[in-house]
Amino acid sequence: MKGTLYGIGVGPGDPELLTMKAHRILTGAKVVAYPAPDSGESFAHSIVAQFLNADQIEIPIIVPMRVERFPAKSVYDQAASEIASHLDSGADVVVLCEGDPFFYGSFMYLFERLAGDYPCEVVPGISSLMASSAVLGRPLAARNDVLTIVPAPSDDETIETALTQADALAFIKVGRHLERVAGLINRAGLTGQAAYLERVTLDNQKIMPLSAVDEGAAPYFSIILVYKGAEDWIAALPIDGLAQ
Amino acid sequence: MKGTLYGIGVGPGDPELLTMKAHRILTGAKVVAYPAPDSGESFAHSIVAQFLNADQIEIPIIVPMRVERFPAKSVYDQAASEIASHLDSGADVVVLCEGDPFFYGSFMYLFERLAGDYPCEVVPGISSLMASSAVLGRPLAARNDVLTIVPAPSDDETIETALTQADALAFIKVGRHLERVAGLINRAGLTGQAAYLERVTLDNQKIMPLSAVDEGAAPYFSIILVYKGAEDWIAALPIDGLAQ
Repeated sequence: MKGTLYGIGVGPGDPELLTMKAHRILTGAKVVAYPAPDSGESFAHSIVAQFLNADQIEIPIIVPMRVERFPAKSVYDQAASEIASHLDSGADVVVLCEGDPFFYGSFMYLFERLAGDYPCEVVPGISSLMASSAVLGRPLAARNDVLTIVPAPSDDETIETALTQADALAFIKVGRHLERVAGLINRAGLTGQAAYLERVTLDNQKIMPLSAVDEGAAPYFSIILVYKGAEDWIAALPIDGLAQ
Repeated sequence: MKGTLYGIGVGPGDPELLTMKAHRILTGAKVVAYPAPDSGESFAHSIVAQFLNADQIEIPIIVPMRVERFPAKSVYDQAASEIASHLDSGADVVVLCEGDPFFYGSFMYLFERLAGDYPCEVVPGISSLMASSAVLGRPLAARNDVLTIVPAPSDDETIETALTQADALAFIKVGRHLERVAGLINRAGLTGQAAYLERVTLDNQKIMPLSAVDEGAAPYFSIILVYKGAEDWIAALPIDGLAQ
């Protein structure tokens, strides 16, 4: 019998934000695969390190970090082939996914290669977006707000339209687009209504008004939230970005 | 010393989708409050019933179900006052929240009444939106998709604009707005690219093409997802709505 492929969301950073289901499947799996940079630690692996055991086979999927984190076809082909060999032998394989597997994640590249041939299950996770509103102490969206989620690499026109239309906006994958996105928010007159967040739920999380950010780039997983009409509340955030 | 108010997300329905943190805080709290209808079972309470113990004090917050689930001021005033008396005595109080507490949830009504006077922490949860993509086996959004989340009670113009602009849309709180929203999706030529979901992750979940839905109303927590360009994939969903 073939093994099952599980894509499990490991959440935004705090290991305790794994779901009980993800924890059960992770600790019972023979093989654990995860995205990893060329050098340094895998973020997804670091989140669940305390739950892993020495008998598990680990498969780091090394995605070269370029200017963009693009889907590197040959990397995923190779990883899918290695995972398939374990599934063929009857072993379950867990793929660790930062946040939620199917919310702008890279798990789709493995899923599309393997789901046709093997049983596959996705276990949803806490996205950093949901965690952002928790650490900010303010709803991401409420009542009948229209919430638009915009990947920061989007072109200027897309971003300008979204800034005009939505009641609340979340820019994800801010990274090297910080300066450009901040400029567009400023031109829309919304800087005073924008909060900047990085590494939420981790010890070194940063939360501050966008106006207090003085760097041109940010970590890949940083977020800008725009709350129309929230000037007073944004202004009350600590400008040093330290946790509240 | 005052107790702490916790708003914890209990997820979309499957009890195992609680986070480990939510589980720890829930099982350690003396007092557990939760939204409940005038008659019948509280959905949030039913999700975590197996984790509760007989020594915990329970506070049902009975929000009358009218045409809309509106914030009933006196109900929340009364609940906040009852919760405050427990916090004053030093007991921690957990408020159960369907999905995520700060993603279109009602926890904000208690938070705004109590967070100024008591320590308060929000534990994020799996929203039914994230769970929808997991049960569908398809990313909610990918790469640089702009994703717009539209509460179904929004007016026609807001919905029409969103249907034009976004790459992917999620209509939440569909309920009695099903027929109107389905009509607007049809006028935009997007019916063949829309999926309908209700009670995701529960045994009686339903997933089907929007075109196969023949009722005018839906449960409050139902969802319509529109994926532009996904005709073939939507057409392959089972039209009887049974779990895949």
